[in-house]
Amino acid sequence: MIKPFRFQDNAFFILDQRRLPTQEHWLTCRSAFDVSQAIQTLAVRGAPAIGIAAAFGLALAAQSGALLEDAAKTLISARPTAVNLAWAVRRVMAAIDGLPPEKVFERAKKEAEDIWEEEIQANAALSTLGADLFDEDRTYSILTHCNTGTLATGGMGTALGVIRELAERGRVAMVYVDETRPLLQGARLTAYELKKDDIPATLITDNMAGWLMHQRKIDAVITGADRIAVNLDTANKIGTYSLAVLAKAHKVPFYIAAPMSTFDPDCPTGKHIPIEERHAAEVKSYGGTVVAADIPAYNPSFDVTPHRLITAVITEKKVFRKP
Amino acid sequence: MIKPFRFQDNAFFILDQRRLPTQEHWLTCRSAFDVSQAIQTLAVRGAPAIGIAAAFGLALAAQSGALLEDAAKTLISARPTAVNLAWAVRRVMAAIDGLPPEKVFERAKKEAEDIWEEEIQANAALSTLGADLFDEDRTYSILTHCNTGTLATGGMGTALGVIRELAERGRVAMVYVDETRPLLQGARLTAYELKKDDIPATLITDNMAGWLMHQRKIDAVITGADRIAVNLDTANKIGTYSLAVLAKAHKVPFYIAAPMSTFDPDCPTGKHIPIEERHAAEVKSYGGTVVAADIPAYNPSFDVTPHRLITAVITEKKVFRKP
Repeated sequence: MIKPFRFQDNAFFILDQRRLPTQEHWLTCRSAFDVSQAIQTLAVRGAPAIGIAAAFGLALAAQSGALLEDAAKTLISARPTAVNLAWAVRRVMAAIDGLPPEKVFERAKKEAEDIWEEEIQANAALSTLGADLFDEDRTYSILTHCNTGTLATGGMGTALGVIRELAERGRVAMVYVDETRPLLQGARLTAYELKKDDIPATLITDNMAGWLMHQRKIDAVITGADRIAVNLDTANKIGTYSLAVLAKAHKVPFYIAAPMSTFDPDCPTGKHIPIEERHAAEVKSYGGTVVAADIPAYNPSFDVTPHRLITAVITEKKVFRKP
Repeated sequence: MIKPFRFQDNAFFILDQRRLPTQEHWLTCRSAFDVSQAIQTLAVRGAPAIGIAAAFGLALAAQSGALLEDAAKTLISARPTAVNLAWAVRRVMAAIDGLPPEKVFERAKKEAEDIWEEEIQANAALSTLGADLFDEDRTYSILTHCNTGTLATGGMGTALGVIRELAERGRVAMVYVDETRPLLQGARLTAYELKKDDIPATLITDNMAGWLMHQRKIDAVITGADRIAVNLDTANKIGTYSLAVLAKAHKVPFYIAAPMSTFDPDCPTGKHIPIEERHAAEVKSYGGTVVAADIPAYNPSFDVTPHRLITAVITEKKVFRKP
C-alpha cells in the first residue's frame, strides 16, 4: 500500500496529490505554514489525511520553536469544511499543554503519529463493519465518488476501505469510479489506487451515474464524509448529494463510510456545516487546460446530504442507521 | 448571431466546434465523406445541425457525380442516435429521386438550404411556444445541459432558443450551464453563445445540479433532444436522465425543446432508441491531455429520459404533455 506521508530528517514529506497519477512527487514541508499551504492547495486532501498532516504541521512548529497558538490557527483555517482538521490540531494542542519546552516537539510528533496509527486502525475496523453489511453469496457493482483511499486517509481508506475489504472477500464485480469534477480525484486518485490493487474498475463521468442506476448496473453507492452532523446529515465532496437523490430514486443503498473523528458534536444538523467555495478557475479548466468560454462559474467544494437519503453511516465503532 | 455553416465555391464550410471557444476555425468539406467525418469526429454536432450538414453532404456528392446511395449510407451511419440525420438525408434523396443528372446538384443543394431555413423557422416558433409557458410577472433561473444553440441547430436554438426568447422578454435571472462532460459542450459552446448574447450565465460542473436544486436556485430545466419516441421518451446527451430524476425529486419543471424532425415514428418507446457508445479516451482525457489513471472507461454518449419525468416537450407545432 502507498504511504502518502513521511516524517524524516526534521521535515514532513507529502506525496503531492495534485501531480498524481502522472508523477509521484514528494513535497517537503518544514513549517506549519508549509503544511497549511499544502492543505489549502490540495497537495494533501481527504478529511482524515488533512487531519494527520495538520498534526505533523504542529509538530514542525514545535520543532522550530514557532508560536503554537498561531500555527494551530493557521492550520485550522486552511480549509473550512472537514472537521477532522480542527479535531486533530486541538488534540495535539491538548497533548502538549503545560509540557516543558524541551519535551513539546517529541510529544507533538508522537501525538501526530498516534493520530495516523489510529486512523489506520479505524479504517480497518470500519472496512470490516462495512463489508459485513453485504451478503456473502453474491458479488456487487459499487459506485464511489471522489477519493477515500490511502491518499485521503493514510490507511486502507473509508469508502474505498470497505470496497478493498469486499474485494478481499471476492465480493466485488466492478467498482464504478465517478471522475469527480472539478478536480478529478476519482479519475486521478481512486483510479490510481484501484489499478495498483488490481480491483476491477471502470471510470465514468459524474453525469453517467443516474443512467447506470437506471440500467440496474449499480448495487450500492459508498462515499466518504468531510463532516457529519449529530443528526447524521453529511457534508462530502460536491456531487454526493445528487448521487444520494439518484440512489434513493432507484432504490440503491447509499452508504457513508467515515471515522468517528468526522462527527461534529457542535453541528446539530447539516445546516450548520460551513461549505467551502473555491475558485472559479477549477471549474473552467480541466487538468490544467482552460476549456470554458469566459463566463463566471460557481464552485462549492462540498454539498450536504440529508440523513433521510443515507442508508447507513459506517464508522469504526458501529454502523449508524437513520432513525 | 453566429452562422455555423456556409456553402461557397463548391465547398461546404463548417465552423469547427471541437476548437471553440479558443479558435474560430472553418473546416472545408468537399465530399459527403468529408462531411460524414466532420459529423463522426464532432466538428459539427447537435441533432438538427448534423441533419443540415448531412443534407449539404449529399449535395456535395451530387456535385461531384458520386454514387448517391453510397453517400447517403455513409452519412446516415456517421452517428447512430440523432434521428434528424437519417431524416434529412432521406428527404434530400426523395427530392432528387428521378431527376435528370444535370438537375440533381442544384435540387439537392436547394433541399439542404430549405432544411436549414425550416430549422431556423422551427427554432423561432418553438422558442416562442416555449417562452409562453413561463409566467410574465417574474424572472427565472434556468438550468440547461449540453449545447442546443445556434451551433447545434443553425437557428436560434431549441432549449437555448427558448432561453434566448425568455431573455428577450426580460424574464431570465440566470442561466446555469452544465459543463457537460465528457466533451464539455456546455462549458465550451453554450457558455460561448450566452457570452456573445450577453445573457447572464454561470458555469457549473454536472454534479452540482442537484445541490443547486436543493438550494432552490433552479426554477426550470430545459434541454434539447436527439431522438424522441412516440410515447415521448427522449434520448439526449448523457446526463439528461440524471437531471430529469433530480428535477422530479425537487419538483422543478423539466422541459425538452426540439423540432418535430426529432420525433421518430419508428420508435414506439425509448427502449428502441440506439445509444451511441464512444471511445473511452473522451472520458479519460481532454484535448490530448490524459488526466485519468490507466483504467477502462464507459462512455455512452446519450441516455433516455422516460416521458413520466418530462413536464412537456416543446416543438414548433405544439407543446406535448405526458398523458
